[in-house]
Amino acid sequence: MYFHKVTILGVGLIGASLALALKKYGLCNTIIGYGRTQGNLIRAQEKTIIDSFELDPAKACDDSDLIVFATPVGIFIDIAKQISHVLKRNAIVTDVGSVKGNLVREMEGLLSPQVFFVGGHPIAGSARSGIDTASAQIFTKAQCIITPTQNTDRKALETISAMWRTLGCLITLIEPEEHDRIYAAVSHLPHLLAYEIVNTVADINSLYLTFSGQGFKDTTRIASSHPELWRDICMHNRDNLLAYIEIYKKNLDRVSRYLRTDDAESLNRDFQRARTLRESIGQD
Amino acid sequence: MYFHKVTILGVGLIGASLALALKKYGLCNTIIGYGRTQGNLIRAQEKTIIDSFELDPAKACDDSDLIVFATPVGIFIDIAKQISHVLKRNAIVTDVGSVKGNLVREMEGLLSPQVFFVGGHPIAGSARSGIDTASAQIFTKAQCIITPTQNTDRKALETISAMWRTLGCLITLIEPEEHDRIYAAVSHLPHLLAYEIVNTVADINSLYLTFSGQGFKDTTRIASSHPELWRDICMHNRDNLLAYIEIYKKNLDRVSRYLRTDDAESLNRDFQRARTLRESIGQD
Repeated sequence: MYFHKVTILGVGLIGASLALALKKYGLCNTIIGYGRTQGNLIRAQEKTIIDSFELDPAKACDDSDLIVFATPVGIFIDIAKQISHVLKRNAIVTDVGSVKGNLVREMEGLLSPQVFFVGGHPIAGSARSGIDTASAQIFTKAQCIITPTQNTDRKALETISAMWRTLGCLITLIEPEEHDRIYAAVSHLPHLLAYEIVNTVADINSLYLTFSGQGFKDTTRIASSHPELWRDICMHNRDNLLAYIEIYKKNLDRVSRYLRTDDAESLNRDFQRARTLRESIGQD
Repeated sequence: MYFHKVTILGVGLIGASLALALKKYGLCNTIIGYGRTQGNLIRAQEKTIIDSFELDPAKACDDSDLIVFATPVGIFIDIAKQISHVLKRNAIVTDVGSVKGNLVREMEGLLSPQVFFVGGHPIAGSARSGIDTASAQIFTKAQCIITPTQNTDRKALETISAMWRTLGCLITLIEPEEHDRIYAAVSHLPHLLAYEIVNTVADINSLYLTFSGQGFKDTTRIASSHPELWRDICMHNRDNLLAYIEIYKKNLDRVSRYLRTDDAESLNRDFQRARTLRESIGQD
């Protein structure tokens, strides 16, 4: 596959890294960036991550063969509405968002039947954000989830899969709603819980934070993640998250009961279960 | 300071590392290990971490100048009862346990007035345990909390502080009860929460664990920690933990409300608060 013109909507960590990787592997000719912060786009151009930029998303997508949504997911729909009328016939539209489900269904509905939408989610994020951390390497051996629906064009699906595979990703195809159930559990819930661990310690006594060791730093590393990005993800995946928070609270209640009733044996079994599961995904 | 004979009660990660460090810095002549698993003691002796070992704690402490409790905290009292009658006059007894509070008071009461007890807690643990991870280096630039009480002998306090300082630690003196409030917040609560994140994902669907990325691995790394060790710590610090779990659940309830009521602005402010606090302790 080869794209003459690519538009990256949102030139942050993932958008900029994708731009770098597309160039590195010779998959495109020109890359146009769109974003809300002109200073960031100017810097991205200076660093030759993008070739040029536009502050109007419709202008940025003019004549593009591949359009990639890489903004926070909360503004996908708004941008889709602004660009749908200008998209080139047979253009492929994809995204790198952490939520799929309804969002993929809505994007499909908004975009003209003359273009092809394929949802994607490379698992290559980081607590650090922005173009300074961007690198073509972040996709090497990363998982990339592609979320086809019954409406997805098979050829466009193959093109997007081949693109990520060329960039080094391991592709898995998953239905959008199942994607959201999975990532609510292994990503969105842990982010929310990590933010609240930090807030809880500050509620207790913010001076205590100065005593934090490596364990606390590991456990709360993702609380450095971009708040707006994660607010959008959590809001879009709220039903799964709300259900999972209740399951989590039930676990906390059970452990509290063990503590209150001095049930050391049950507490040990509970921790042992978690340890065995955690070790099953590797020690790193 | 120089110790002719040192007894390490519990030759795990911290006990073995302390033995290695005491020898590296030339602070002692002989080190006797005590533990419940003969195989581990034999290996520790083969690796010259300890010079010899005993399976009876009283025998292990015979004629020692320095006795270090490095077992899980749950068996401190039992061992203290077994050794108190054999301790040499003016011997110093210390520990490396993660809980202090009542435990320090009880240890003081159990040990004869002819020996000196000084509570200590080097912040040098890891999700990995056992002698294979042991190293004299783990104390370099580590914080070490010393918890004197009104009963603590000033000279013994100075000796123990000087020992940890020689090994590379940064010393802070804190009252035992305040130590437990601090470490319940920045260490014991995060461990308990990390164990329950893993259990919650398994409750949802244990197959989902295979989709975990770096964020999940960081957040749950300490769920690989030794269950018995953390069961004992949590049980001994239960009052603080139970109170903090309730504060945490209140934070989860507030965030759930933001999700249910579509209050994106409040959710953003909540995450932003956590991010600012998390970044204040460094990005690593």
